[in-house]
Amino acid sequence: MSPRKSDSRARMVLGAAALLREYGASATSVDRVLAHSGAPRGSVYHHFPGGRAQLIDEAVALAGEFIAGLIDAAVRAGDPLAAIDAFFALWRHRLVDSGFRAGCPIVAVAVETNDEAPQLARSAAAVFARRREALAVLFVRHGLPEERGRLLAVFVIAAVEGAVIMCRADRSTAPLDAAAEIHDLLVHALRDRPDRGHAQRS
Amino acid sequence: MSPRKSDSRARMVLGAAALLREYGASATSVDRVLAHSGAPRGSVYHHFPGGRAQLIDEAVALAGEFIAGLIDAAVRAGDPLAAIDAFFALWRHRLVDSGFRAGCPIVAVAVETNDEAPQLARSAAAVFARRREALAVLFVRHGLPEERGRLLAVFVIAAVEGAVIMCRADRSTAPLDAAAEIHDLLVHALRDRPDRGHAQRS
Repeated sequence: MSPRKSDSRARMVLGAAALLREYGASATSVDRVLAHSGAPRGSVYHHFPGGRAQLIDEAVALAGEFIAGLIDAAVRAGDPLAAIDAFFALWRHRLVDSGFRAGCPIVAVAVETNDEAPQLARSAAAVFARRREALAVLFVRHGLPEERGRLLAVFVIAAVEGAVIMCRADRSTAPLDAAAEIHDLLVHALRDRPDRGHAQRS
Repeated sequence: MSPRKSDSRARMVLGAAALLREYGASATSVDRVLAHSGAPRGSVYHHFPGGRAQLIDEAVALAGEFIAGLIDAAVRAGDPLAAIDAFFALWRHRLVDSGFRAGCPIVAVAVETNDEAPQLARSAAAVFARRREALAVLFVRHGLPEERGRLLAVFVIAAVEGAVIMCRADRSTAPLDAAAEIHDLLVHALRDRPDRGHAQRS
């Protein structure tokens, strides 16, 4: 593939991810991706024989890889809470830089039932699962028992995604800031009581 | 307004909410709402002079009121953790009953930038804010210091919304179950150490 063709392919995937972030999956049409990326119409089915579904699927995979890379780098650096902080900071910057217009492309795909392309939900699920597993490893390294690390990882990933959505609605980073402020406390509170099972209701 | 007209109005708002849950905001067109609700085309601008944006706005408000009513009832009943459990259980049932097709209509609106109807994001923000405030009251009643109650409320509401999204992608209630399993532990862990500020990094 010539460099130019390869460029137009990459531009289309990046364009699809950008549109997903801002307008959601239904609004991410092939026409809109072409307009956004400046790629020639003829290139769509050349680069993406599976059409729009393949293009969106690749945008999901690309966005997934980016965050996974961030978490993997943190695992190697060995500072679990710094990794979570970096994750929160990344979202904070993305929200502010986009004027609160851009959220998570994986969420965009997951919140729309797509009967024609059910594989998109599976791709989104794979990205979420990889994030949860990486974060669980970080929590366990930080001293949490394995089961608790797994549960807290689900909770934190879900809370980050939910907080990003609330930030967009609020046009403010306050929900993400609140979530970031408490996560350290949660990790420490749970780590420091390894003997403690689920508490009784009062 | 005759009962029949009023019925068709309510059916359209409910239909819009159902479509938002399943297909997102962009896909919730007036045509689709009419097809879903069986309402006559002529009734749209009669009932909703503001057109599609008004219809979606009312669907957001209706969905918001429903959850708010659930939380308010729990506040009156005085069992904070039972209230959160009911909230998790509600989502679990909705997901299972819909075959994991239906999520939160407030999220559906919040994840799509809508330049023509920016009031929709504000309506979504108002619903989220009311939920966070009601939940913070419950946590404080359960013994959490006020600031901690406020932060945990943001975290829990965000986590529920995020977990619902992950459940749809996974076609499984596992993420919501994990989040529900740990929330009691978080509330107790944070309540039992009112003297403890934010922990130092290890």
